[in-house]
Amino acid sequence: MEPVTSTADKLSAPAASLDPLFQLLGDDLIRVNRLIVERMHSPVALIPQLAGHIVSAGGKRLRPMLTLAAARLCGYRGDRHIALAAAVEFIHTATLLHDDVVDESALRRGRDTANEVWGNKPAILVGDFLFSRAFQLMVEDGSLRVLDILSTASAVIAEGEVQQLVTANDTSTTEAAYLEVIEAKTAALFAAAARIGAVISDRPDAEEDALARFGRNLGIAFQLIDDMLDFSARQSELGKSVGDDFRDGKITLPILIAFARGTPEEQTFWRRTLEDGDQTPDDLDHAIDLIERHGALDETMARAEAYATKATDALQLFPDTPLRRALVETAAFATTRGF
Amino acid sequence: MEPVTSTADKLSAPAASLDPLFQLLGDDLIRVNRLIVERMHSPVALIPQLAGHIVSAGGKRLRPMLTLAAARLCGYRGDRHIALAAAVEFIHTATLLHDDVVDESALRRGRDTANEVWGNKPAILVGDFLFSRAFQLMVEDGSLRVLDILSTASAVIAEGEVQQLVTANDTSTTEAAYLEVIEAKTAALFAAAARIGAVISDRPDAEEDALARFGRNLGIAFQLIDDMLDFSARQSELGKSVGDDFRDGKITLPILIAFARGTPEEQTFWRRTLEDGDQTPDDLDHAIDLIERHGALDETMARAEAYATKATDALQLFPDTPLRRALVETAAFATTRGF
Repeated sequence: MEPVTSTADKLSAPAASLDPLFQLLGDDLIRVNRLIVERMHSPVALIPQLAGHIVSAGGKRLRPMLTLAAARLCGYRGDRHIALAAAVEFIHTATLLHDDVVDESALRRGRDTANEVWGNKPAILVGDFLFSRAFQLMVEDGSLRVLDILSTASAVIAEGEVQQLVTANDTSTTEAAYLEVIEAKTAALFAAAARIGAVISDRPDAEEDALARFGRNLGIAFQLIDDMLDFSARQSELGKSVGDDFRDGKITLPILIAFARGTPEEQTFWRRTLEDGDQTPDDLDHAIDLIERHGALDETMARAEAYATKATDALQLFPDTPLRRALVETAAFATTRGF
Repeated sequence: MEPVTSTADKLSAPAASLDPLFQLLGDDLIRVNRLIVERMHSPVALIPQLAGHIVSAGGKRLRPMLTLAAARLCGYRGDRHIALAAAVEFIHTATLLHDDVVDESALRRGRDTANEVWGNKPAILVGDFLFSRAFQLMVEDGSLRVLDILSTASAVIAEGEVQQLVTANDTSTTEAAYLEVIEAKTAALFAAAARIGAVISDRPDAEEDALARFGRNLGIAFQLIDDMLDFSARQSELGKSVGDDFRDGKITLPILIAFARGTPEEQTFWRRTLEDGDQTPDDLDHAIDLIERHGALDETMARAEAYATKATDALQLFPDTPLRRALVETAAFATTRGF
């Protein structure tokens, strides 16, 4: 078996992208998208309207892609991965709808959020609907193992989101606590999405665990970069807002690093802006300046790369195929993406 | 088999109560309550705090009681009804948490709502957590039929809640549309809760359907009385707020009846207060006056009694036992309760 190409090689390679993964799984993904549209139908017209708004908003479909890819990597040849990938995307969409209400977000992927267009009430309830639909899809599939994995992931996601609320505005949050939050709110679903691909392929535990490890580490890398991009000029160049986490008082790794490395005066600044929520219009620029000065973005990137490498390493178990290479590139993409 | 006592007999009988049901199922209910407390645990302390606030707020536990009662009525002798009753209560609690956010309610059962104490954000997310926990309990139980019944009921509840938002402030809502909303948002879970008791007892379809019919009709009767009590002096005597639905512009049966029977001037009043949301402090008293003048509370009560009778009739299939009599009394309680 060939050694897996490390993400470090990406520096000399063309920019990593999701394209190879999409090319290999494009036909499956079309079927997933078709099923999503079919199953978000309801006689209550507002439900497909609102759900369609977010489902078609140009998400990367990364989580359902993990289910599809894991199944294919395990040599799966049936149809079950399609419905389960749709279930994964429904769970993800439900959490996005609720997150946007909780964060009072007005924009997602450059478009108005559902709560901005229709208000909080239908956004909450359509989230509940999609969550129920996800379970209906799993029940139709009929695997109690899959139901176990995804119901547990859903509970863990909610725990992570609540823990994030609890640690918000608290500059004494530890890095360990921060990592627990992102493992729960983001990486748990990545791990579960990949794991169920192995489950339906009926592969040995070692392969199942390897795919879950790939998903979990990829998810952590993704979230670290997400938290980094919130303070990055790259994000604003792409027409996306910068500083949302700062304004919300969310304690992310760039802030934790800048805080830990900061002078007493700087720590006073962080406490005023994040704990007391006392922010002036210039404070975001100052925050970004401090974060850059202390190398907090580079450090966050380095951590993300370490997790991406762990993700890549987890694939060692599988033969070197175009699909494995596409997943390795997905891990590289996770740390080089600007969106 | 004895004929089932009709709810009409309650007029000459002592006030109907839930006591007989609680007495017969008390030991089971204690186990359900214990399991609820155990399974709402999370390392994230805010979750059991917030969940405990609503779970211990003195709800009637009517839905889990239906699961327990249906199982016992079917002669079930195992333990599965305990966990499934807890799952039903978790689903119900999750919808209450989200409903209170959606309705911006500050009081439930005479106590501050969770959203009032902790804010909307954790109330939404703890709702998601409890919903996931419900599915974890069902997965542990291992019946795909039960998972099917309750995931479908959950989707239908969300549809009903969205449909209620859509029809709010619309005085041209038909009675049929109103009935669809309450069947979905309330009666579907009553029906599912009762049905799963028969499912785990492995009884013939006829018994399963009869119990679902009992639950559904009981649920409709309950919701009709709920909507009636919102305009009733009885509610205010019990220290509960009156007129919440009117203030929210919810179109319930008492309003639909008063509107249909009203003069053109009265219909103008309803349109101003409900459609335009233009309400003065005296408007609620006038609304109650119109509702009483047109006999809309009596009419709503009569409809509720008809559904309670249908619920009772559905029990004909089962032998006349203390438990069946307790369920008949539960149906009578549904229409005579003041809370």
